[in-house]
Amino acid sequence: VAGLNRRWTVVSHPVGMPAPSNFSFDAMPIPKLGRDEVLLKLLYISIDPGQRVYISELVGPDAIGAPVKAWAVGRVVESSSPRFAVGSYARDNLGEAGVQEYSVIGAKDLVPVDPDPSLTAHLGLLGMPGLTAYFGMIDIAGVAPGETVVVSGASGAVGSIAGQIARIKGCRAVGITRGPEKARYLVDELGFDDAIDLLECGLAAGLAEKCPEGVDVYFDNVAGPMLDDMLGHMKRGGRIAFCGAVSQYNDNAPPPGITNYFQILMRELRWQGFYVGSHAGQFAAAVDQMREWVAAGRLVQREEVTVGIERFPQTLLDVFNDRLRGKMILQVSPGEVR
Amino acid sequence: VAGLNRRWTVVSHPVGMPAPSNFSFDAMPIPKLGRDEVLLKLLYISIDPGQRVYISELVGPDAIGAPVKAWAVGRVVESSSPRFAVGSYARDNLGEAGVQEYSVIGAKDLVPVDPDPSLTAHLGLLGMPGLTAYFGMIDIAGVAPGETVVVSGASGAVGSIAGQIARIKGCRAVGITRGPEKARYLVDELGFDDAIDLLECGLAAGLAEKCPEGVDVYFDNVAGPMLDDMLGHMKRGGRIAFCGAVSQYNDNAPPPGITNYFQILMRELRWQGFYVGSHAGQFAAAVDQMREWVAAGRLVQREEVTVGIERFPQTLLDVFNDRLRGKMILQVSPGEVR
Repeated sequence: VAGLNRRWTVVSHPVGMPAPSNFSFDAMPIPKLGRDEVLLKLLYISIDPGQRVYISELVGPDAIGAPVKAWAVGRVVESSSPRFAVGSYARDNLGEAGVQEYSVIGAKDLVPVDPDPSLTAHLGLLGMPGLTAYFGMIDIAGVAPGETVVVSGASGAVGSIAGQIARIKGCRAVGITRGPEKARYLVDELGFDDAIDLLECGLAAGLAEKCPEGVDVYFDNVAGPMLDDMLGHMKRGGRIAFCGAVSQYNDNAPPPGITNYFQILMRELRWQGFYVGSHAGQFAAAVDQMREWVAAGRLVQREEVTVGIERFPQTLLDVFNDRLRGKMILQVSPGEVR
Repeated sequence: VAGLNRRWTVVSHPVGMPAPSNFSFDAMPIPKLGRDEVLLKLLYISIDPGQRVYISELVGPDAIGAPVKAWAVGRVVESSSPRFAVGSYARDNLGEAGVQEYSVIGAKDLVPVDPDPSLTAHLGLLGMPGLTAYFGMIDIAGVAPGETVVVSGASGAVGSIAGQIARIKGCRAVGITRGPEKARYLVDELGFDDAIDLLECGLAAGLAEKCPEGVDVYFDNVAGPMLDDMLGHMKRGGRIAFCGAVSQYNDNAPPPGITNYFQILMRELRWQGFYVGSHAGQFAAAVDQMREWVAAGRLVQREEVTVGIERFPQTLLDVFNDRLRGKMILQVSPGEVR
């Protein structure tokens, strides 16, 4: 395929909240295929808070000049792999698709995707957010029936699924969120047992009321002072599955330290960080399981789709405001929905 | 048995370093036996940094007025349990023996001890410190052959055994300690592969030189700023087995926070606190294994025995100075060694 590939690259590491000036929208020739590779025309690009990390100084200088890291679903337009026929759909497993119109990806890092229930589901419920929730809740936290599970950022793409999986596994799921609209979303649409609205009461008061006997599992994608407070509310033998630090991503100052960590010792807690990509070998089995839950209506999620790749910077910024949204997705171009 | 039981009780929670005024040396009637209980005449009492926690405000008001919590080995002088014959030796599993001359303990919380290799070994190599090292290294950290293991407080009762178990499991063991005498003890007597002497160089310089490729497992019984620094030296997927916080025990101010905790996420670390008593169901099998290693000369430890229960407060304080010693043990009275 000849032509131009429009793409958003990183010009500079953001200081604080990302700004449009951190990105450049350019056009390069569509890249050539190598052995056992696939050229995808990207249709839907996942927009996630974690992208803030991939453009930060933390990941080193490699990010500069490269397309912004992103998971995406696309249509195969060229293929040197027998596993991927032209015209079929695929998603990358490692977030290397990038915020661009075309991407060449090694076949080993791609999975075929089924347009049923939808292509976008493979970026949310059946994609990186869903898989992060799945491996975090099941492999990292090791939830058991009857346990009390608290999820931070609970209305977000990952947190909303984490709470639902906790419920499926027989746990009591309590979500932490901000504002009454999101609190209702958790309980009424997603089926959380309860919600703590930080705008209504502080975390301590919320936990005292909704988890009076303590917390077995804290699924955290926020970090910061909330994590510090949670350490004092865990039950003995509790686990913290730590997959994100949204509260810190845009904070240029060093984060306030975790002072309550002595509780890790006193309460025999296990605090474990994880990255979904490290579980790629088990993705297929997990997606099969999640697909069953989706089909049965046990896993649901709102989606918010922004149309037009040129709107990437604002879409990323929108992830960090307090409005209720579901999974954020950037549709590359208006004409092409499948 | 009639008579008096001299004992050290807690009068007040220490503020900072414990002082003699925090303790009272009194005498009460020797307690009476109930069903399935054993009256031990204590011979050797274990003195450990962790005792500082048991007399602190952290464990709540129950400590006040009670004997100072301590593990001990004693001779059975009365028994209502068929498992413990008068004249045999036993050790308690939960540290409830206390700093006193006599203690009544439920048979279920006692283990018989073999005077071979020595009664005192059941407070060190084959006792709580040895078991803490064993479960921390094997169950909590899950060490694998070829891994690099760093141990803090490496010349202490727990750390010295932790490093040796890491070696037995095929790891490279590096101990962190203070001063050249302790550094030599680690390498020359205990067989650590290397030692970082904090008085000779800082932790960062020591790690750069001795663990240039990073650390797979950090066995920590010190906590504090060293733990914060270690987070930046762990390999991806590293584990921190956290069994003590000696650096904080006598610090009245809130500890400085852990600011590097974002590395738990970036490096997919697992930080787990544990308490040896929670593994009591597996003690027997672990002691059998440790006993083999001791017999083969693969596990060794110096002991420092102070004679006379009246010397308890100073003996506890000695645990916190920088001098090289082995396992600290208080021999209850001079006449009675077995």
